[in-house]
Amino acid sequence: MPDVTINHCEKAHALLKADADKILRLIEVQIENLTMPQCPVYEDVLDTQMFGLSREIDFAVRLNLITEEEGRNLLENLEKKLNILHEASQKSL
Amino acid sequence: MPDVTINHCEKAHALLKADADKILRLIEVQIENLTMPQCPVYEDVLDTQMFGLSREIDFAVRLNLITEEEGRNLLENLEKKLNILHEASQKSL
Repeated sequence: MPDVTINHCEKAHALLKADADKILRLIEVQIENLTMPQCPVYEDVLDTQMFGLSREIDFAVRLNLITEEEGRNLLENLEKKLNILHEASQKSL
Repeated sequence: MPDVTINHCEKAHALLKADADKILRLIEVQIENLTMPQCPVYEDVLDTQMFGLSREIDFAVRLNLITEEEGRNLLENLEKKLNILHEASQKSL
């Protein structure tokens, strides 16, 4: 039943996307609640979350559940969105 | 081909075990090179590595590649070994 394998791949993609979205929402909430993006706690939270996600992605790549390129794209995509959020919050200050 | 699925499970177990062993070796090297276990850098490295591994384990559990209990055992096992290493290094000071 190759279905199960496809499910592992699909599920890995879905989980990683959900985790990336969770980081984005976390940062959105932090910005909405006016925690300064310059605040060290904000940087710490973001660094920790990004590190955690990168470890998950690396693990999925090593399991051949996603390709290296997909993993890289996922992180780059998240970073782009975070930058947009960050810039928007700077302008509204 | 259910083989592929079994391989994902087996590979997940092997990767997680290898990652746990890597942390153990890293700490061994740090202790052998006389970096004090009380040193903040030592604590930081350990915390970061343990966090990374716990994220990988959590991801594998969510993918149903390992059970929650297996994941817990893996972390507890590593912590036990790290404690033994730590205690041995204290005695030899």
